[in-house]
Amino acid sequence: MTTAVDTGLYQRVQQFYAVQMRLLDEGRAEEWADTFTEDGEFGQDRRPAPRQGRAEIGGRLRKAADALAARGVVRRHWLGMLAVEPQPDGTVTTRYYALVIETPAGGQSALHLSTAADDVLVPDGDTFLVRRRYVVHDGWTP
Amino acid sequence: MTTAVDTGLYQRVQQFYAVQMRLLDEGRAEEWADTFTEDGEFGQDRRPAPRQGRAEIGGRLRKAADALAARGVVRRHWLGMLAVEPQPDGTVTTRYYALVIETPAGGQSALHLSTAADDVLVPDGDTFLVRRRYVVHDGWTP
Amino acid sequence: MTTAVDTGLYQRVQQFYAVQMRLLDEGRAEEWADTFTEDGEFGQDRRPAPRQGRAEIGGRLRKAADALAARGVVRRHWLGMLAVEPQPDGTVTTRYYALVIETPAGGQSALHLSTAADDVLVPDGDTFLVRRRYVVHDGWTP
Repeated sequence: MTTAVDTGLYQRVQQFYAVQMRLLDEGRAEEWADTFTEDGEFGQDRRPAPRQGRAEIGGRLRKAADALAARGVVRRHWLGMLAVEPQPDGTVTTRYYALVIETPAGGQSALHLSTAADDVLVPDGDTFLVRRRYVVHDGWTP
Repeated sequence: MTTAVDTGLYQRVQQFYAVQMRLLDEGRAEEWADTFTEDGEFGQDRRPAPRQGRAEIGGRLRKAADALAARGVVRRHWLGMLAVEPQPDGTVTTRYYALVIETPAGGQSALHLSTAADDVLVPDGDTFLVRRRYVVHDGWTP
Repeated sequence: MTTAVDTGLYQRVQQFYAVQMRLLDEGRAEEWADTFTEDGEFGQDRRPAPRQGRAEIGGRLRKAADALAARGVVRRHWLGMLAVEPQPDGTVTTRYYALVIETPAGGQSALHLSTAADDVLVPDGDTFLVRRRYVVHDGWTP
């Protein structure tokens, strides 16, 4: 792996996440779902089974976004401490931390969640699709 | 647009914001004002009119920084989830989230504000000047 | 300094910090110590003397990590607002902000600390070693 390749890759991944999380935070469920592969998988330590496929991933966001909107809450996902590793099969694995910041209408912003995640990304032109995401929630106990 | 161009651009924008926000947080009003174009504009959803021009932008920071210093408060602006888009006219538009973290002397750090912003940047050698910034404050209601 | 050099450098530093902070947050004391030079120095405004050398730096993390584990607390270090400056002697100086987020088992995540830091990095192949780090804690008073 050369530095030139790395460099472009790292910043493209950063830009991808900025765009993807904006879709999530704006409740744009269909566009969000389309940032996963057709058979994309979204797992979390605090849920028994992963969400599978775009329909389920998008549908879940639709419900969550509607509930937040009804409560007048703005939610923002911050990713950071990103490590990017190109794989021999052409996929790209990433590890990062993510925070969720919530703000109620007329109220005070607060840290809602601290998490860490692992993704498998598939290159898609200049951007990526998520094949698999697994999120660990700090403080969660079964 | 080529990846090579993108790559340098994205990291230069990141470095620009790191330097610019440091000036803001250190209350260096004149240097902060000089990171905007002469006719730079700084708008916020919670203010009726944008600040216009370096004198007004710098003067406003002078006042705010003095007030914070009098209260013994350290304020830090964190930008993240940055998306960068070069425009055909040579400007660069950016979108990002920003947090403000405040810490009183001898006290506990706390999340003060969660925001999202849109900038129009003008290249200036290896760095940039802000022609226009517009900041939306989460939770703000008119 | 050319943009090409800058670009690769900035992202390599970002990736280095992501990997290094992961070691810190996972309490991997020996690997963490190995991200410093043999004679590495870790100073803080709130401690009278810097920790010096890998043994002391690693030993200190071992103790801190054990104490956190005993309390069931997850700690995550977030670095941001990174500025990178290559020096004529081949070292790389960096400035950044850092947050510490803490989450107790079964509890709510919270902002624990807001800091700013200066590093001197020594290139080590595609990555870096920390020769000197100095961290300022917001709100700290002697």
